[in-house]
Amino acid sequence: MSGSTYGNYFRITTWGESHGKALGVVIDGCPAGLHLEEQDIQSFLNRRRPGQSRYTTSRKEGDQAEILSGVFEGKTTGAPISILVRNEDQRSRDYGNLAVCYRPGHADYTFDQKYGFRDYRGGGRSSGRETLGRVAAGAIAAKILSAVGIRFCTYTASIGPVHIQEFHPEDIPQNPVFMPDNAAAAKAAAYLEDCIKKQDSSGGTIVCEITGVPAGLGDPVFEKLDANLAKAVMSIGAVKAVEIGDGIRAAASNGSANNDRFRNINGRITKMTNHAGGILGGISDGSPICLRASIKPTPSISRPQETVTQTGEETALTINGRHDPVIVPRAVVVVESMCALALTDALFSNMSATMDSVAAFYNK
Amino acid sequence: MSGSTYGNYFRITTWGESHGKALGVVIDGCPAGLHLEEQDIQSFLNRRRPGQSRYTTSRKEGDQAEILSGVFEGKTTGAPISILVRNEDQRSRDYGNLAVCYRPGHADYTFDQKYGFRDYRGGGRSSGRETLGRVAAGAIAAKILSAVGIRFCTYTASIGPVHIQEFHPEDIPQNPVFMPDNAAAAKAAAYLEDCIKKQDSSGGTIVCEITGVPAGLGDPVFEKLDANLAKAVMSIGAVKAVEIGDGIRAAASNGSANNDRFRNINGRITKMTNHAGGILGGISDGSPICLRASIKPTPSISRPQETVTQTGEETALTINGRHDPVIVPRAVVVVESMCALALTDALFSNMSATMDSVAAFYNK
Amino acid sequence: MSGSTYGNYFRITTWGESHGKALGVVIDGCPAGLHLEEQDIQSFLNRRRPGQSRYTTSRKEGDQAEILSGVFEGKTTGAPISILVRNEDQRSRDYGNLAVCYRPGHADYTFDQKYGFRDYRGGGRSSGRETLGRVAAGAIAAKILSAVGIRFCTYTASIGPVHIQEFHPEDIPQNPVFMPDNAAAAKAAAYLEDCIKKQDSSGGTIVCEITGVPAGLGDPVFEKLDANLAKAVMSIGAVKAVEIGDGIRAAASNGSANNDRFRNINGRITKMTNHAGGILGGISDGSPICLRASIKPTPSISRPQETVTQTGEETALTINGRHDPVIVPRAVVVVESMCALALTDALFSNMSATMDSVAAFYNK
Amino acid sequence: MSGSTYGNYFRITTWGESHGKALGVVIDGCPAGLHLEEQDIQSFLNRRRPGQSRYTTSRKEGDQAEILSGVFEGKTTGAPISILVRNEDQRSRDYGNLAVCYRPGHADYTFDQKYGFRDYRGGGRSSGRETLGRVAAGAIAAKILSAVGIRFCTYTASIGPVHIQEFHPEDIPQNPVFMPDNAAAAKAAAYLEDCIKKQDSSGGTIVCEITGVPAGLGDPVFEKLDANLAKAVMSIGAVKAVEIGDGIRAAASNGSANNDRFRNINGRITKMTNHAGGILGGISDGSPICLRASIKPTPSISRPQETVTQTGEETALTINGRHDPVIVPRAVVVVESMCALALTDALFSNMSATMDSVAAFYNK
Repeated sequence: MSGSTYGNYFRITTWGESHGKALGVVIDGCPAGLHLEEQDIQSFLNRRRPGQSRYTTSRKEGDQAEILSGVFEGKTTGAPISILVRNEDQRSRDYGNLAVCYRPGHADYTFDQKYGFRDYRGGGRSSGRETLGRVAAGAIAAKILSAVGIRFCTYTASIGPVHIQEFHPEDIPQNPVFMPDNAAAAKAAAYLEDCIKKQDSSGGTIVCEITGVPAGLGDPVFEKLDANLAKAVMSIGAVKAVEIGDGIRAAASNGSANNDRFRNINGRITKMTNHAGGILGGISDGSPICLRASIKPTPSISRPQETVTQTGEETALTINGRHDPVIVPRAVVVVESMCALALTDALFSNMSATMDSVAAFYNK
Repeated sequence: MSGSTYGNYFRITTWGESHGKALGVVIDGCPAGLHLEEQDIQSFLNRRRPGQSRYTTSRKEGDQAEILSGVFEGKTTGAPISILVRNEDQRSRDYGNLAVCYRPGHADYTFDQKYGFRDYRGGGRSSGRETLGRVAAGAIAAKILSAVGIRFCTYTASIGPVHIQEFHPEDIPQNPVFMPDNAAAAKAAAYLEDCIKKQDSSGGTIVCEITGVPAGLGDPVFEKLDANLAKAVMSIGAVKAVEIGDGIRAAASNGSANNDRFRNINGRITKMTNHAGGILGGISDGSPICLRASIKPTPSISRPQETVTQTGEETALTINGRHDPVIVPRAVVVVESMCALALTDALFSNMSATMDSVAAFYNK
Repeated sequence: MSGSTYGNYFRITTWGESHGKALGVVIDGCPAGLHLEEQDIQSFLNRRRPGQSRYTTSRKEGDQAEILSGVFEGKTTGAPISILVRNEDQRSRDYGNLAVCYRPGHADYTFDQKYGFRDYRGGGRSSGRETLGRVAAGAIAAKILSAVGIRFCTYTASIGPVHIQEFHPEDIPQNPVFMPDNAAAAKAAAYLEDCIKKQDSSGGTIVCEITGVPAGLGDPVFEKLDANLAKAVMSIGAVKAVEIGDGIRAAASNGSANNDRFRNINGRITKMTNHAGGILGGISDGSPICLRASIKPTPSISRPQETVTQTGEETALTINGRHDPVIVPRAVVVVESMCALALTDALFSNMSATMDSVAAFYNK
Repeated sequence: MSGSTYGNYFRITTWGESHGKALGVVIDGCPAGLHLEEQDIQSFLNRRRPGQSRYTTSRKEGDQAEILSGVFEGKTTGAPISILVRNEDQRSRDYGNLAVCYRPGHADYTFDQKYGFRDYRGGGRSSGRETLGRVAAGAIAAKILSAVGIRFCTYTASIGPVHIQEFHPEDIPQNPVFMPDNAAAAKAAAYLEDCIKKQDSSGGTIVCEITGVPAGLGDPVFEKLDANLAKAVMSIGAVKAVEIGDGIRAAASNGSANNDRFRNINGRITKMTNHAGGILGGISDGSPICLRASIKPTPSISRPQETVTQTGEETALTINGRHDPVIVPRAVVVVESMCALALTDALFSNMSATMDSVAAFYNK
């Protein structure tokens, strides 16, 4: 099966392993005439770059994106855009018992079960580095969406037990965990210090709010906008839950409280609340789309863990090297990218929803 | 766009509106040689039938499934299986202000925005009756999965504030809300009585546990098994959150607690816990798959609600007729069906994962 | 695998066997707001109805199409359109040695090889009756295309050795073989009489010319418009060759003769010839699209034929009953329908080809 | 739309323009455990390399394929295989009136119509160099097919008026036009000399014969094996016709002559002729698959041609530089590659055709 492609109209294919020669992505279905330069992509990639703080790995990953096709004289041509990022450090080294042990919380065991063997250097295809391609493509999707007025605000909402208490969007880039609340961010940092000291790691949550979405995106049945957002975000390695709008809180609510009533505000039909998270019946309703992703703790921890080898021998595994005590801050831009990809697909799909649209397009 | 098809290898297409002539589903890609009769489908449909208790609508829906193709002499032929359910009561009647008002929590407004007008009789395509086709197809998927030892246990885990406290699978069919805890079910019933009295409705949660899943189903990147389960379940109308394994609780956990360690138990590599919910790196690991869906309260409530008409006039809407005070019990089999569809697709996809499999199949 | 679906944006799924309860098609992705009634579909179905002449089977097939969903108050709603045609005569009868023999030129042998057994009543899924669903869907596609000025002229160009010599479109509906040349049609009729006398059958060719196609439909690489037309038409049972423009004659030509030169005719860029058949680099160029399909002779002939049974016994098979001595006339509307489906898909796909289009659609 | 991807189970995505930085292909869905090295790919690429004879362009194209992912320790891992070929000579140069003129027989005009502008350096995406990716992927597909006993014999059957008279497979690599008839090849060479002298070009035909194909590949309706082969081959730039088996000759034939009768030969059910070309009802029947492609003459000829500029000015265009007087010999491996891709997709798809297969796979 071919599971490395996402999207129908705006379609991306990622490739590459964490310790191979390079990683990349091919973006197909990008409309012609979009102004695009490598810097557009680089600015997104930089948001997931390691080594930005004490809470992200100190490995040096330059991650310079090179556009190899699909752009001519600064504009997309309609042809597929191929983006390449070379892996800088591929020295063959001794992977020791990593080559034969199954790391808890990782995909080592399932890869062996599915494929009969695996590329044991780093995480192979299930490494977080695979998201490089998603983010490079997400940068392009976000630029397309921006042209029709769609904007993203994505941030860390909690790390372990520390939740944001206030919402100051200007705080997001000011703290190393991308919280819209510098005070909560300071508490999160203290909590992460403690995790490091205990040779442990932490999970957290990410919220993505999307504004300026026109009503009408998404389809009524299997291609609901929320269903596609859920798949897009759940396909990110460490995500264990996706909520739309009130999410799990809706289950404990009543219809009278959960229904968003409509009003006419200055001649505009408007929902007075947004428990639905901007989507009704799978179709965007014009209010902000709100999505929340729950991220599991980094599985690579430095304290010894019980596990088994490929041949079933029980052993204690110690994972050396520096690993992020929390994935969440670097995953913020990945969540945003996946949402941008899902939305762009819906944006193009919707253009033939009515005969009036089709006739107007061709009879102009 | 064509959003009424689900699946790549085992592909279903549903059609029909709540108040049209009929509803149905076409199942394509079903292997030849499966014993199948209408009763297999009917027994699944009966699980979502209304009128089974005080907490589900008393509308009469016979919902007799007719198989029109794809089965010959009691066995599937490999051809598409078309299943039809006639709508029994299609008297044209006065829809009153439902034809012009936007019901809060429903898709009326977004359909008008997307398509320019809508079929205002019942919910049209976004009606819960659309799930008839999903359940009919799910019955077939479940029968295929059963042939390789995969079993489902799906139940209501909470209704409003009432959560199950114990797990007795034998209780599930014994109470009208399909909880594996008759005592909690009684409390849920009391809560629903209260909702009815208050002209209100309640949400709840559904859990689906799948056992006997072989390791190796699902793909590493965008076609992760959890991503496809999330899309499948989130595409059900009222679902607002999907969690895999520990779900949102993983966000507050630590790596040392959340990692499932491996042991060798009687010569078999085994996870000692299952925080991951049976999926690692998007691939099934052989332990039970656990998924939780959060369902919003029924949006149709009988108390008057503020809303607007198509032309923007503010009005108070009263929805007459009997509506389920809770969707959850009837949605249990829908969640199970969607999970079965996602798994069947992964089951077939996985068959060409290795050259050894391909060569063994053709060089036999 | 699921091979009963065609199209990505305008997607149809056919189902049903020749001797089952019914046949049908689900059309998904039809824009909302198209005026549609059963008569639109019936008029297409009538073009493939048997019993219209001595050269088509005298079986009675009423073939009344019923629209079950997707249309409300005379207009499509954007929901899937389900169309059903009941098979009228399903008496169980004695299929004699047809149940165990492999008819030459039919799919009996390959179905048994693939699926392990087969529905031996008529051709099952490989019967010509399967095309009912294609034609019903083609009627809708043609109506959509018509709204943007695209018109079809499809006709029989040869039957056996008899080729048309002149082109009078008004002749097409005037003769039983749908040739645009009544004189040639008379010769073809005489030839078919001879075939009937010899208990034999004949092949022939069909030409489809499509005018009013805007430049820009189709994509440069794998989704070339000609590639999709070729697949669409080759998927019709008896088609053995598909040619675009000059087709096989291009192979014997020279560049200087085969290149269509451009001129400016009254301010309009125009090709002075159309060897290319209206498609350059996979994209429509605004001139008429010309496609030719070669149809094999009806495999069911009444003279005895050597063959084998399922168990390998050699036998002489006599196929009783009346069969068309030529498939071509009834296949004319099938070829037109498949071309209409391929074009409609390309029509919708093209709407997001440029950022200007996308921005104009959403920023209006 | 995203037209650069081919295949469902074995899926390739090509990217790159003739005069960009590089071209490449991503192959997804390749089973794990296939022995693969760059030389496997290079040997296929060499068959389409220019400069091998007087009849192919003398441009230097080293075309060294680099595998960037998906292979570990000499074996495929199941992850996507990314293959890159750098364009060696990308000096910016003066494209003169090529930048503004529409070359007859090329896609310049249609690209401008579709995308609003174009990359005018070489053919961009519609260049023959795009086929590099197809051939690299085809090499892998052919290696997979070879593991189950499927073999290809692909050759030039005609160039202009010169057709092969005999069939000596050993001749194919011995002459520059890849004909299985050295005598015909000499005549073809003389004919091409004449074309060069006249500043003209020639078309021709390519035949692909595939042996060892197991019965059962392909599906009955839209995913017929012949339909997919037709699309695959028609998607190659210069192909104007695709024939299966007797192809256009079937149209002039009779059922009694065209039907392939079955016999029992030494206990094996065998077709005594192969007019059908190895496919019945869209499913392979175990006899050789025979396909013929008609290729148009190279549109780039050195004699002056009438055309127009983007702004509609009429002009005479002279295309400088050396161009192949015939595309056919270099297209032989492209046709073979596309057939291999279509077959590999059908090979994997077929593995879940019966419940017996599915149960045997998982219950082993």
